[in-house]
Amino acid sequence: MFSNKVQAIILAAGKSTRFNTGRTKLLEKICGQEMILYSTRLLESFNIPITVVIGYQKDSIKETIVSRHNDALNFVVQDEQKGTGHAIMCTQEIWHQENILVMNGDAPLVTADIIEKLYEKHITTNAEISFVTSHHAVPDNSYGRVIEEQDSIQIIEARDFHGDSSEHCCINAGIYLIKKRFLQKCIKDLTFHETSKEFYITDLIKIASDQKLTVTMVPALFDRIRGINNLQELWAAEHIKRADLIKHWMERGVHFSVAQNVHIDLNVTIGAGSYVGCGVHLLGTTQIGKNSRIQEFSSLDNTVTGENTNIMPHTILENSKLGSNTKIGPFAYVHDHSVIGDNVSLGNFVEVKKSSIGSGTKALHMSYLGDAQIGCNVNIGAGTITCNHNSMIKHKTIIHDNAYIGSNNTLIAPVTIGQEAFTAAGSVITENVPPQALAIARTRQVNKEGYATGSSHSAFVAAVKTNNDQASDHS
Amino acid sequence: MFSNKVQAIILAAGKSTRFNTGRTKLLEKICGQEMILYSTRLLESFNIPITVVIGYQKDSIKETIVSRHNDALNFVVQDEQKGTGHAIMCTQEIWHQENILVMNGDAPLVTADIIEKLYEKHITTNAEISFVTSHHAVPDNSYGRVIEEQDSIQIIEARDFHGDSSEHCCINAGIYLIKKRFLQKCIKDLTFHETSKEFYITDLIKIASDQKLTVTMVPALFDRIRGINNLQELWAAEHIKRADLIKHWMERGVHFSVAQNVHIDLNVTIGAGSYVGCGVHLLGTTQIGKNSRIQEFSSLDNTVTGENTNIMPHTILENSKLGSNTKIGPFAYVHDHSVIGDNVSLGNFVEVKKSSIGSGTKALHMSYLGDAQIGCNVNIGAGTITCNHNSMIKHKTIIHDNAYIGSNNTLIAPVTIGQEAFTAAGSVITENVPPQALAIARTRQVNKEGYATGSSHSAFVAAVKTNNDQASDHS
Amino acid sequence: MFSNKVQAIILAAGKSTRFNTGRTKLLEKICGQEMILYSTRLLESFNIPITVVIGYQKDSIKETIVSRHNDALNFVVQDEQKGTGHAIMCTQEIWHQENILVMNGDAPLVTADIIEKLYEKHITTNAEISFVTSHHAVPDNSYGRVIEEQDSIQIIEARDFHGDSSEHCCINAGIYLIKKRFLQKCIKDLTFHETSKEFYITDLIKIASDQKLTVTMVPALFDRIRGINNLQELWAAEHIKRADLIKHWMERGVHFSVAQNVHIDLNVTIGAGSYVGCGVHLLGTTQIGKNSRIQEFSSLDNTVTGENTNIMPHTILENSKLGSNTKIGPFAYVHDHSVIGDNVSLGNFVEVKKSSIGSGTKALHMSYLGDAQIGCNVNIGAGTITCNHNSMIKHKTIIHDNAYIGSNNTLIAPVTIGQEAFTAAGSVITENVPPQALAIARTRQVNKEGYATGSSHSAFVAAVKTNNDQASDHS
Repeated sequence: MFSNKVQAIILAAGKSTRFNTGRTKLLEKICGQEMILYSTRLLESFNIPITVVIGYQKDSIKETIVSRHNDALNFVVQDEQKGTGHAIMCTQEIWHQENILVMNGDAPLVTADIIEKLYEKHITTNAEISFVTSHHAVPDNSYGRVIEEQDSIQIIEARDFHGDSSEHCCINAGIYLIKKRFLQKCIKDLTFHETSKEFYITDLIKIASDQKLTVTMVPALFDRIRGINNLQELWAAEHIKRADLIKHWMERGVHFSVAQNVHIDLNVTIGAGSYVGCGVHLLGTTQIGKNSRIQEFSSLDNTVTGENTNIMPHTILENSKLGSNTKIGPFAYVHDHSVIGDNVSLGNFVEVKKSSIGSGTKALHMSYLGDAQIGCNVNIGAGTITCNHNSMIKHKTIIHDNAYIGSNNTLIAPVTIGQEAFTAAGSVITENVPPQALAIARTRQVNKEGYATGSSHSAFVAAVKTNNDQASDHS
Repeated sequence: MFSNKVQAIILAAGKSTRFNTGRTKLLEKICGQEMILYSTRLLESFNIPITVVIGYQKDSIKETIVSRHNDALNFVVQDEQKGTGHAIMCTQEIWHQENILVMNGDAPLVTADIIEKLYEKHITTNAEISFVTSHHAVPDNSYGRVIEEQDSIQIIEARDFHGDSSEHCCINAGIYLIKKRFLQKCIKDLTFHETSKEFYITDLIKIASDQKLTVTMVPALFDRIRGINNLQELWAAEHIKRADLIKHWMERGVHFSVAQNVHIDLNVTIGAGSYVGCGVHLLGTTQIGKNSRIQEFSSLDNTVTGENTNIMPHTILENSKLGSNTKIGPFAYVHDHSVIGDNVSLGNFVEVKKSSIGSGTKALHMSYLGDAQIGCNVNIGAGTITCNHNSMIKHKTIIHDNAYIGSNNTLIAPVTIGQEAFTAAGSVITENVPPQALAIARTRQVNKEGYATGSSHSAFVAAVKTNNDQASDHS
Repeated sequence: MFSNKVQAIILAAGKSTRFNTGRTKLLEKICGQEMILYSTRLLESFNIPITVVIGYQKDSIKETIVSRHNDALNFVVQDEQKGTGHAIMCTQEIWHQENILVMNGDAPLVTADIIEKLYEKHITTNAEISFVTSHHAVPDNSYGRVIEEQDSIQIIEARDFHGDSSEHCCINAGIYLIKKRFLQKCIKDLTFHETSKEFYITDLIKIASDQKLTVTMVPALFDRIRGINNLQELWAAEHIKRADLIKHWMERGVHFSVAQNVHIDLNVTIGAGSYVGCGVHLLGTTQIGKNSRIQEFSSLDNTVTGENTNIMPHTILENSKLGSNTKIGPFAYVHDHSVIGDNVSLGNFVEVKKSSIGSGTKALHMSYLGDAQIGCNVNIGAGTITCNHNSMIKHKTIIHDNAYIGSNNTLIAPVTIGQEAFTAAGSVITENVPPQALAIARTRQVNKEGYATGSSHSAFVAAVKTNNDQASDHS
């Protein structure tokens, strides 16, 4: 809408001191996206040149931005952290548009309409400098206060403000639109504040006001302009973002039962008619098909499901793909690029790792299926384990359509079970099983009568270590 | 209290457009009960004739109501959705009581005292029409606004109201008590609104007011008269209902630790002195005995527990019955009509399906017990699996009192383990074990010394596929 | 600060009638600590003599206090529950300091600064009796109302107050500082209230006021002086305490994602840079190392972790110790004084009980490791079970460094697996395995071709019960 007249500068060089995590706050995630990307993606949507001022942990921040934006942004390094005014000074060489939009990198809830309104009023009032304000009456050491007296207007930074915040309830949101000509003329007039060892960008307001130049203010809701200066504010911002997302999906026919406990990421999609239970986590690029049920305490991360999927409680799905009409869980774990067909049932205490499972197949109880390629309509008995690892390398287990794997089988890869083959319960399968064959690998049972009579302790203890052939000797 | 003079009409024909789920909202559950049943059960408690006007998805709605009320209600079909006024017109033939109570089917939080107060004031004021109002100052496109001017009173439907909702903060709750004689006389005066293609029942208020007939208003709390027009309102209503239920059980000696995360259904009961942890789901007709502990993230659905039960975290119980002093979990799954005795301990990664377990029995680790009949004081070793399924039909496993099942046993049904019998760890039990007998079905161990020396890869790989008899050749 | 002039009396004899749990409320826990200990520990910090008046369930209360304070407190028994005034009368013999501080045992949120301010104003005003008040405008039958009229001041107990609570919004917090000389003189003037069958300590205020003695009031925030009279108030108090603790750790660099769902106890510590997910429970004396991740729905009870620990979702750790860079879960259970080294990975459906695990060891899938002593860099295959229990006693499984346990092994204790030894998948290990040896204990596989042809039901059924040697006969 204003691409030819505006360029943007994002301030992302600060030290995140109040986070106390030892890391830059700008890479903390909010609903699955790094905080700094909320600013860069918002401004990208306006199709204007963007410069990011980086300093503290600059390589990580740059890497994160570049991985998302493919080099479309410029970076300027502010080596010393001498305040917002100094950050702007560092960008002087790249000022080339008529208006410079400046915003903080730690304001992830700002929406496009706030920027649009700022631009519109900036133009219509022909202002030298315009900025976004908000109403915030409680004391808060994160926001400068806007003080208007007669003809004068200025921003007092939070650390220098000692007045009554309910009286001076208008705060500076940290989003400015400045005419290049004003910036070029007045940037040198910013003074160095000895107590904080910083130059403040906010002093430009007073400079303009003192020169009787037009200063325009544009109000916005506090919940949209919140800055994130500590971990409590991070939590609050994510809470707001999450509520926005849940409301969005509710309006599109998704039933959330205990919505306040659900975690949902920015890029998740959910089909109409679906149900999301208490404590569900929908993460990354997860896509839920229509009319599905995601039950309590399940987590889906980068996972795509078909329609009419039923994810039972306490199920974790990661980086996998599920067909329609599948039922998974409770207490199941499907991960590592597994692909599950339609009408599959996976039950409790079942893990599927790096495997494909054909349509109509069932594995209902306690199994580990790893590096396996399983056909359609296969039945996997309880306690089945694929041994894909021989201390050196990993091998594949292949099970063809309609095979029936008995309970408590140990399948030692590489191994192939043929179509319609049958393995006896309790077998250790070391060799391929031809189609329609029966494979057995277990020892015949021996009963030693009266062994447990008289509660003889020593007999019991002996029994524990007795094996089949020894037992047979006595029988 | 007023059975001989009142009959009720419930409006349940609407299209649930704003739900966007493709299903009628009236069958969405709130605390385990379909929304429409809150209205029908409330009115049933007054012992008056009830007529339900159905239209959209009428068969499902009728079926749900009939399954709960055994045909005690009448149904009238409104084939075209031409508004609330039209719905009333459809019922004309069944008006036979002096007063007609009309209410919406999507107001699940209405309590008996609101209806009683409406009746009382209707009678004492000798009103022609009475209705329930509430105070709701925020803009909301779900409620008509009550506009009183001098002697006139009327309701402006939300879609036609363009005023200030904080000024006109009195809303129509959608509950009316109307004299039959007035209805018979004036129903024909309802006008068809061209913009919405609907007749409005609310126009009756203006008709009565214009004729200087008595119109009586009865105020109620907004949280009790909320209508449910979209999924956000459904969530809010369930939240309120849940809080009511939790408060009810708190007053009866139940300790909820993180009450805001608990889900509890309408028909659940909980004994005094019990503790309910964070995220617990108590569903359906679950009954918790006294002095029990239901720990975090566990779910009980249609399950009855004895006293002093300890349900450890992350445990799911469905359609089952537990004795007293049982300890189940963590990470256990008991379902499908299982019956568990007193003093039983079931541990982690244990599934019990369609089985009975006698008093004092223990299965503490990783087991699948399905279609099993297990006696008292039995010990089930870790990794035990009942193989109840042979690809065709299901068989039973029977284990008698005081038996001891060694770890990692595979019990192939049909099979019976006698009293005080003992099975060796790692056995595959295919035949019955007599009482007090020892059953063994495993192969003697062979050690091949030095096999792993020199980190020879090929030796390792060979070993993986070597079996017992081959190994013996070398030893 | 005032040890030589003050002694304290804690009132802890009441009946907890409104809890309806059948137990004294004073032993209900708030953030892991019994309610009564909040009062005793607060007063202990002032280093003054403390007397606790006990009555209802006095032995349990005394035991709890003594176990925490090592006999440093005195106890006085109030045998009959005749009110707060009577409780004070029972302590008459131990009054030996100039000032007597009296407080209720059910006010767990009171902070030291409230007591300090009370003392300070008591001294500076030279008051005969001073007490803490608060502002609480809603009707509430738990607090006496402070009524000031001209020169007179009195407290009306909640049961006798019938006025407007928004007008009389000043309540009595139940914390008094009284000159011994006044108490000695006036205790006999307390009257017996016939309706409640009680003496009220609050009558002392009116007595002092009537005698024109100085009565001093010290206001405090309601959320700090809340009394706990029913389970709803218990829930609210724990909610406040929990929020305090979470705020404390947020300020120290801990990232809580869905803070409102986290449970955290009083004595837990968390290292900076750590992340705590939705629904996490941090209990008892748990200590989390720096830069760790505790993911959703995991619980840690009395457990210490090293740095960079990654606790995956749905993991339970109890009474155990973990090294640094460990990864546990999802769905894992480590308990009963297990000790886990650095760089260990324990995966899903893995239980570790009373075991030690050396650094670099992996057990990634479905295993039960109990009473085991496992060395470094050991690989435990999926489905491994230690059989530590032979129906009589428990034995140890010892696995030395660099051993490789194949999948689905049954290790029958007592047994020792030597260094670098290798066990074949599916083996039942009954004897020790020498270092670098290969142990095998499984039967050779037999394939019976064509057995499953023609979908012969009887063949299938026969197969289920067929064993290896029988199968071999046909091959």
